Amino acid sequence: MTAIRSAHDLSPGLSFDLGTFVLPRAEVLDFARRYDPQPFHLDDDAARASIFGRLVASGLHTYSATVGHLIRSGLLAEINLGGGGCELSWPAPLPPDEPVRMTLTVEALRHSRSRPEMAVATLRYVVATERNGTVVLDARATHFLRR
Amino acid sequence: MTAIRSAHDLSPGLSFDLGTFVLPRAEVLDFARRYDPQPFHLDDDAARASIFGRLVASGLHTYSATVGHLIRSGLLAEINLGGGGCELSWPAPLPPDEPVRMTLTVEALRHSRSRPEMAVATLRYVVATERNGTVVLDARATHFLRR
Repeated sequence: MTAIRSAHDLSPGLSFDLGTFVLPRAEVLDFARRYDPQPFHLDDDAARASIFGRLVASGLHTYSATVGHLIRSGLLAEINLGGGGCELSWPAPLPPDEPVRMTLTVEALRHSRSRPEMAVATLRYVVATERNGTVVLDARATHFLRR
Repeated sequence: MTAIRSAHDLSPGLSFDLGTFVLPRAEVLDFARRYDPQPFHLDDDAARASIFGRLVASGLHTYSATVGHLIRSGLLAEINLGGGGCELSWPAPLPPDEPVRMTLTVEALRHSRSRPEMAVATLRYVVATERNGTVVLDARATHFLRR
């Protein structure tokens, strides 16, 4: 993906299709063991008895893999200086090996009051299944960007 | 930690000291390679030149490790059914090997409208350094809990 050169090249409403990725089952289990060791993320039988009805990725994993996908796309490689916060929701859980597509949309952009070389952007990440468009992550993240 | 038996045992304002944890440097690098491969999370020289001034953990890692610490504490092991979303902020970055303490506070609690067997709780996670109380994660998470 072509890297954006400056926050000046972004404007509210601009949207990027970042393509697809999956969370392989082995990685779902590995992530859950490390960071979210709850039965419904680790064991098929326990997951069937849970509100999810089957084994699903930790929402932390869905979120982390989404950011990993964004960073690897290279889109923000020349301008991303760091992040300040995020509002996350998981409207539906993500099962292993289910292809999802990420869309990034610029929701807001302003100059930094304290650092004139920086802009502050609100970027929305929407991740939905390729199968039927079920949204599995909807996030609004604050990014500090090079102007 | 003694597990809470029912959402009925929680009430707004109740707070739990969940003790300390650290993000070891090797784990900081491993997490960043997988989920947030940006130079300021991977390379000391690049990090010194960044707005952070030194290598710091990915905020995703701080958040994931916090949830991992909460789950491993066992506090919610008998009642946590899943999560619906989270508002995250990282007021300061977390360097590797810096001990932090997690405090969990019940901010709100209501019955689920759609599922009478469930309660919906807003739980606040505050993670601060032991050294001087710098807050490195402040999150409000929605948890579905067994009543």
